[in-house]
Amino acid sequence: MTTSESKLLVGIDIGGTKTAVLLSAEPPQVIARREFPTRPEQGPQRALELIKSGIREMLAEHGACEQSIARLGVSCGGPLDRIKGIIQSPPNLPTWDDVPIKAILEEAFHAECLIENDANAGAVAEHRFGAGKGSQNMVFLTMGTGLGAGVITDGRLYRGTNDLAGEVGHLRLTRTGPVGHNKKGSAEGWASGGGMAQVAQQAVAAAIKKKRPTRLSKLYRSGSPITAKDIGAAARQGDKVALEVLESTGEKLGEVLAILVDLLNPDRIVIGGLAMRLGDLLLEPARRVIAREALELPAKTCQVIPAELGESIGDAAALCIAMRI
Amino acid sequence: MTTSESKLLVGIDIGGTKTAVLLSAEPPQVIARREFPTRPEQGPQRALELIKSGIREMLAEHGACEQSIARLGVSCGGPLDRIKGIIQSPPNLPTWDDVPIKAILEEAFHAECLIENDANAGAVAEHRFGAGKGSQNMVFLTMGTGLGAGVITDGRLYRGTNDLAGEVGHLRLTRTGPVGHNKKGSAEGWASGGGMAQVAQQAVAAAIKKKRPTRLSKLYRSGSPITAKDIGAAARQGDKVALEVLESTGEKLGEVLAILVDLLNPDRIVIGGLAMRLGDLLLEPARRVIAREALELPAKTCQVIPAELGESIGDAAALCIAMRI
Repeated sequence: MTTSESKLLVGIDIGGTKTAVLLSAEPPQVIARREFPTRPEQGPQRALELIKSGIREMLAEHGACEQSIARLGVSCGGPLDRIKGIIQSPPNLPTWDDVPIKAILEEAFHAECLIENDANAGAVAEHRFGAGKGSQNMVFLTMGTGLGAGVITDGRLYRGTNDLAGEVGHLRLTRTGPVGHNKKGSAEGWASGGGMAQVAQQAVAAAIKKKRPTRLSKLYRSGSPITAKDIGAAARQGDKVALEVLESTGEKLGEVLAILVDLLNPDRIVIGGLAMRLGDLLLEPARRVIAREALELPAKTCQVIPAELGESIGDAAALCIAMRI
Repeated sequence: MTTSESKLLVGIDIGGTKTAVLLSAEPPQVIARREFPTRPEQGPQRALELIKSGIREMLAEHGACEQSIARLGVSCGGPLDRIKGIIQSPPNLPTWDDVPIKAILEEAFHAECLIENDANAGAVAEHRFGAGKGSQNMVFLTMGTGLGAGVITDGRLYRGTNDLAGEVGHLRLTRTGPVGHNKKGSAEGWASGGGMAQVAQQAVAAAIKKKRPTRLSKLYRSGSPITAKDIGAAARQGDKVALEVLESTGEKLGEVLAILVDLLNPDRIVIGGLAMRLGDLLLEPARRVIAREALELPAKTCQVIPAELGESIGDAAALCIAMRI
């Protein structure tokens, strides 16, 4: 059987920086892949054309026709209307206001198109192919600039009533504090890349005032924002101020995870983004706080581990959507 | 067909104060009911004998034999081992340490016996027969002396990995504060009957000091503990101190509910116990806090209402377990 006769899946991962388009066999095996910068500031039209032409090119290269597409799956930032298939102004895609991507791609390729927000799609991908394999009750945390989550209960994705379950970044940890998800003292304010940068900014300012040396002072004085990457690099070189910032972020992350442990009693919490790069520098303080804050048996039962799919999570997530997992 | 030929269900609701035993047809229709004081201080043996003799008496009265029992369902306080059917020292049943109730009843009646903790069983009962009818994603809060929850996701009971999902009472709201679930400043410390009593005790002491009049001062001076019932009665008579206690408890309840709204995006939160008796005195402040603290669409989507089954919830809960719902 040649690829032109078998059924193919198309996965589309639309991020704020780059968009990937994949052609896969079913069961999943990637046949071809295209990637291009999303450039949201130029509006959605350009990216949509590149998605369509990318799919057509990959089909042509493999001697396959459009009729061989079984399904298309789109993973992108929320909010979105999953049923109608409309992308609704995600914060990472300015100008993408009410883009009916399902209708656009179904008209172009005459195959069903499914869409899902990236936290949910990532949860499904890690559950099926990554660090969540074999888990029954899992929370997948996306810890990047923001903080989001996808929730698996009894082996299935739990989306909630408006597809908005798992908005952990919006939970309140303190009355005041760094801002995340438009809320001071929120979980995203304290325990995300963006929040960590705010905490670092203050910590470095305080260190300079107290004449404590830190590798981050030069960056601070230059006026450039301190990023999670800078903090991680300094911490790995033993910088005490950076280590303190990581520890306090890890502890705040632990407070969030303790809530998840007490409420959802998961067997695994899988954390993507920063946790993959920073590992135990972030997760050890988090685990300590869980042991102190959450109920004993659920705390002992729940493994807290970094995600495994790394850079390929977007690809896997988009394919999972196309596979209707 | 006489009852002796048809299959019957037995529901057993074991509470800290009373135990009820029910005989029901299937589909559920209560045929007979017995109730007796549990008296946990006398050990489990007496209650277990009363359960067994109660079932036998009801069967005899209705000309039914033991073979006509299809299944028995037990609802009681956790922790318990649902699979093995063992009651493991629930706080409301001192002396009930590792009681293998499933084995005991299966040996006595040669029919399958299922057990479930009362928060989960209550959630299922309200979902099927009460204020949760038609809901897809529901949280049922038991707000009595303590604070617990049962969670329905996509129409099914979600139990978690150790049957310990929904331990909302253990969530931290503040660093210090009233004690609940062995934790200062916990949700149960702030937003339960027990927590409200602690808050009232302090509020009345402060009122007396400031010479503010309150109907609760006499009770306070007598040395008797102020209960949620006393606070409710005083509030209904317009007592300002009591109203303030209710409002602050309602606000703390709202903080807990906002966490549930952001994490689970339920279409309904159903609250039993105090919320049934105090209604909007408690729920209005809670709804205000949800509107302020939780995400807009999930907050608007989620109805927050009192439970409907009232005193009969234990009966319905036990029968739901026997029905394997």
